Amino acid sequence: MKIPSHLEALISALRCLPGVGPKSAQRMAYHLLQRDREGALLLAKSLAAAAQNIQHCTRCNNFSEHSVCSMCAADERDESLLCVVEMPADLLMMEQTLCYRGRYYVLMGRLSPLDGIGAKELHLDRLQKRVQEQLCEVILATNFTVEGDATAHYLAAMLQAQGIKVSRIARGLPVGGELEQVDAGTLAQAVMERREMAI
Amino acid sequence: MKIPSHLEALISALRCLPGVGPKSAQRMAYHLLQRDREGALLLAKSLAAAAQNIQHCTRCNNFSEHSVCSMCAADERDESLLCVVEMPADLLMMEQTLCYRGRYYVLMGRLSPLDGIGAKELHLDRLQKRVQEQLCEVILATNFTVEGDATAHYLAAMLQAQGIKVSRIARGLPVGGELEQVDAGTLAQAVMERREMAI
Repeated sequence: MKIPSHLEALISALRCLPGVGPKSAQRMAYHLLQRDREGALLLAKSLAAAAQNIQHCTRCNNFSEHSVCSMCAADERDESLLCVVEMPADLLMMEQTLCYRGRYYVLMGRLSPLDGIGAKELHLDRLQKRVQEQLCEVILATNFTVEGDATAHYLAAMLQAQGIKVSRIARGLPVGGELEQVDAGTLAQAVMERREMAI
Repeated sequence: MKIPSHLEALISALRCLPGVGPKSAQRMAYHLLQRDREGALLLAKSLAAAAQNIQHCTRCNNFSEHSVCSMCAADERDESLLCVVEMPADLLMMEQTLCYRGRYYVLMGRLSPLDGIGAKELHLDRLQKRVQEQLCEVILATNFTVEGDATAHYLAAMLQAQGIKVSRIARGLPVGGELEQVDAGTLAQAVMERREMAI
């Protein structure tokens, strides 16, 4: 059977979504055409509007519709703390913990020499300039991948040379985690980074 | 944190996709903006083009960009067989079996009296008119749900009254299926509809 070419193009375009393979893309395309053409048109509009209007904040790199994002413009955030994350999605996760009220800086990537991404490509001079303002502590919240860890180490050395206190978010078992189910590497780290219990 | 309004709109629009809840919609939106804005724009274009250009074939109701779809226009299909399915996605599944070379008719729904969908709403008179042409057999391939089964029974009565041979696709265990894992209803049907083995 020859599938109509617009349908084929839609199925293939849907595969740009993360976690969507050929079978789900097909199911999504048929679903939209069979039952929700209005939804499809609204999604088309939203995609175009978001891709065109959402830029990066000139201070923290987070997604923003203005040159300075609402979080950088807000007065009530703690100016003495700066949390460094890899991507805007990581910033969102941090915010959802509701436990951090300082400022952010989004790297928009991680150091990855094999892919040709070094300090220059990440524009780390912008971060260096940013932390020249009054700051008590920089919290490194890059991922615990090989590259995220390497980035954290690089940033720690760079910022400590500027005389700034640098910390890294903790590694260990997840809340509700059981020793039996966690991988050996995580458990080993949790033992090495154990903390004295204050009672 | 106030999420930019275009981003919020995109996250909510992505939820029209089947199987996409709030968390995956958020992940998809961030992925597209962080890593694949071109893909997002292409998807927007494909969605709009598909929703605007894909209509239904006037003969079989399948998706088509022309008034008669490529399958109805094709010469090599067997004119003596007509397979009736509920939706275009079902037709696609039938085609993917590669075992059927006849024509199709897509009901675009099923009888569902509780939702006010009767013979009139499904335009079954169009199907009646369609089978007046030379036909050996109509194969009913509606779903094995309560409504799909009821639809099959209604169609069988209607078409047999017109003197047409009507069959229903088989119900039973899936290929590779194990008795232990199948539900009791399916197994009961498989026993009732057992076939003599020809050796």
